[in-house]
Amino acid sequence: MNHIFSVETTQHSQMIDMTSQLNQWIQDEGVREGILIVTSLHTTAGITVNENADPDVKTDMLRRFDELYPWEHTEDRHMEGNTAAHMKTSTVGHSQTIIIQNGELVLGTWQGVYFCEFDGPRKRKVQVKVIEG
Amino acid sequence: MNHIFSVETTQHSQMIDMTSQLNQWIQDEGVREGILIVTSLHTTAGITVNENADPDVKTDMLRRFDELYPWEHTEDRHMEGNTAAHMKTSTVGHSQTIIIQNGELVLGTWQGVYFCEFDGPRKRKVQVKVIEG
Amino acid sequence: MNHIFSVETTQHSQMIDMTSQLNQWIQDEGVREGILIVTSLHTTAGITVNENADPDVKTDMLRRFDELYPWEHTEDRHMEGNTAAHMKTSTVGHSQTIIIQNGELVLGTWQGVYFCEFDGPRKRKVQVKVIEG
Repeated sequence: MNHIFSVETTQHSQMIDMTSQLNQWIQDEGVREGILIVTSLHTTAGITVNENADPDVKTDMLRRFDELYPWEHTEDRHMEGNTAAHMKTSTVGHSQTIIIQNGELVLGTWQGVYFCEFDGPRKRKVQVKVIEG
Repeated sequence: MNHIFSVETTQHSQMIDMTSQLNQWIQDEGVREGILIVTSLHTTAGITVNENADPDVKTDMLRRFDELYPWEHTEDRHMEGNTAAHMKTSTVGHSQTIIIQNGELVLGTWQGVYFCEFDGPRKRKVQVKVIEG
Repeated sequence: MNHIFSVETTQHSQMIDMTSQLNQWIQDEGVREGILIVTSLHTTAGITVNENADPDVKTDMLRRFDELYPWEHTEDRHMEGNTAAHMKTSTVGHSQTIIIQNGELVLGTWQGVYFCEFDGPRKRKVQVKVIEG
């Protein structure tokens, strides 16, 4: 089964916790065992699993990604000027696969599933699919 | 179902769009719904999903990866001298999972599936597998 | 089918080859065809597939990750002080998917599956799941 979530980002770089709505969808669909594929349909926004407790981790991560991949780069040729966002997307990944057990996502105590906006604010699409088994 | 694609790279660093041949294979196999796992069988070449339109994005990405992971590094101990290629492979990932719906890969307008050569030119192998469901 | 492996790391940064025990588990469970999802249940430890031969590759990779993501950073706000470990985890990924064929993991000659400790030593959990097909 498939579903598309709409995500409206409000900042240029932003990590949005989707864990609750993903678990809710799994429960609504009655899935008990399987895997969930969570996919960003964009090349300047990805998906990652990381810290769900201290919001400073997100702040630090987005700032460190900016340092690693500076927005302005004299040698970049891509006319849109957002090569840094493409780099970040391939670094965290456009998609993540999460195990489902007993009707919910298998995540560690501190893990959440994040949509990572790297060139916002924009209206984005996240496609999810369950393989049961 | 499984298949191995041969990829012959022509440059030291290169991103090769495999989207068309992956979609063709899915169609040939008659797959309608499921997921596709696309795996590089190498430790100095990976798989990523990124921009399929402006070729400058690939140029920029490969150059920025070179800046991040310089080929020469006085402290590297690996005798083959290609530690940078190993780093890039773990950064983009050796494998990606793509959703299949209505007989084709679910990708955003600007997304393509790329084989990423980081220590070419070489003859490479990409294994793909479908899980239907 | 699901299983949780316990991994006890002994160093601050460490890559531990899990390939043998993963193959053993697949064999014990009698799995012939499918995929294996290997997931770190932590936000400061990930999973990657990389070189299984020369141990210097691991040494180089961990050192280069330290250079890319220095432990101390004056602008980090996260009180635990381990933002670098969170960055590394999102860079390599918290989880990898491996194809299973003829009762074993499909890996290239030089590929191994690694648990990546980025803030050890600690006792860690790795959850694995098979989807047959």
